[in-house]
Amino acid sequence: MTHRGSIQLETSGGADVHDINERVIGIVADSGIHEGIACVSVIGSTAAITTTEAEPGLLTHDLRAFYERIAPAGEFYKHEQTWHDDNGHSHVRASALGPSVTIPVSDGRLALGTWQQIVLIDFDTRSRRREVVVQIVGE
Amino acid sequence: MTHRGSIQLETSGGADVHDINERVIGIVADSGIHEGIACVSVIGSTAAITTTEAEPGLLTHDLRAFYERIAPAGEFYKHEQTWHDDNGHSHVRASALGPSVTIPVSDGRLALGTWQQIVLIDFDTRSRRREVVVQIVGE
Amino acid sequence: MTHRGSIQLETSGGADVHDINERVIGIVADSGIHEGIACVSVIGSTAAITTTEAEPGLLTHDLRAFYERIAPAGEFYKHEQTWHDDNGHSHVRASALGPSVTIPVSDGRLALGTWQQIVLIDFDTRSRRREVVVQIVGE
Repeated sequence: MTHRGSIQLETSGGADVHDINERVIGIVADSGIHEGIACVSVIGSTAAITTTEAEPGLLTHDLRAFYERIAPAGEFYKHEQTWHDDNGHSHVRASALGPSVTIPVSDGRLALGTWQQIVLIDFDTRSRRREVVVQIVGE
Repeated sequence: MTHRGSIQLETSGGADVHDINERVIGIVADSGIHEGIACVSVIGSTAAITTTEAEPGLLTHDLRAFYERIAPAGEFYKHEQTWHDDNGHSHVRASALGPSVTIPVSDGRLALGTWQQIVLIDFDTRSRRREVVVQIVGE
Repeated sequence: MTHRGSIQLETSGGADVHDINERVIGIVADSGIHEGIACVSVIGSTAAITTTEAEPGLLTHDLRAFYERIAPAGEFYKHEQTWHDDNGHSHVRASALGPSVTIPVSDGRLALGTWQQIVLIDFDTRSRRREVVVQIVGE
């Protein structure tokens, strides 16, 4: 048995973190699947999905400072010569985190902690309309 | 067909790496599933799951030095002002690695190399009791 | 319903990035699965799978510069004392990215963007023959 849902959201770029946990929970509830796996995946190569505590200190400061430390926006990126744009660091960061997270569904619920939320991070340098696909497989 | 198992373990924090490969293999064997996917996921936002060679040099030195380089414990983390704690770097590191790893099951076995083991890394700053959920979907 | 395929490729090491997207698409098409999840996983602990835009600037310069910044080849790695080899940084990088990526299959197609390709990155220091397992579960 499979069930697919979709989440649309507007982002502002620049490591913009969005808590999409409640919307994923809603899709799991709609699925009627009690035991299985949920794959939450963003379409595009300048955004990523992971889990974190959706708390303002992490979301608006700490995660951004971390991404800037490991892949600074001001470095030289050859990608920007190819397309004459400015989002080389966005691609590098997105590929490091990965486009998807896969979480077990147990007794009809996502196997997450109380302080653990599924988030989308948009690393692009401009606002984007993003689509996240949630595919659940199980019984 | 789905099969769910659970692994409980005590960790000491500070990028404490635990080889849980044999316990995951045991759950796959119990499942009776020959072809499918195994999702191995830790509950909580300060721990992560990945694969590596479970060899003391990597587990007790190299991985820790790497995490300290990319997200130093001594940096300023706004998260610590929110909760008056000291684990901002733990959250950042855990979200970068991700809470889960998903591995194919082929002919009843995990598709891993000889020197590739599934490990849990606890990034928190204190000892914790951790739960890892292993959900297998297939036939 | 499950379907398993395998991709074999020769790599040269040193953060050698290979676009395997067309081969994964071919396995999804062969599967006949219209709704489900595809898990793409490399066997071994010195390579990783992720998605990125398969564009020469990123593949031959930007990603390599990023890996060298976060886990320099010239650092001290205790792993190299264990085995008297030189690929400590390869292990560290591979475990940070993870061995697999999991992507939804929707209407018989991978849920990827136009500029988003599945790639294998070989972090080892020598040429290797790699096997990537693609396991699809769905209906």
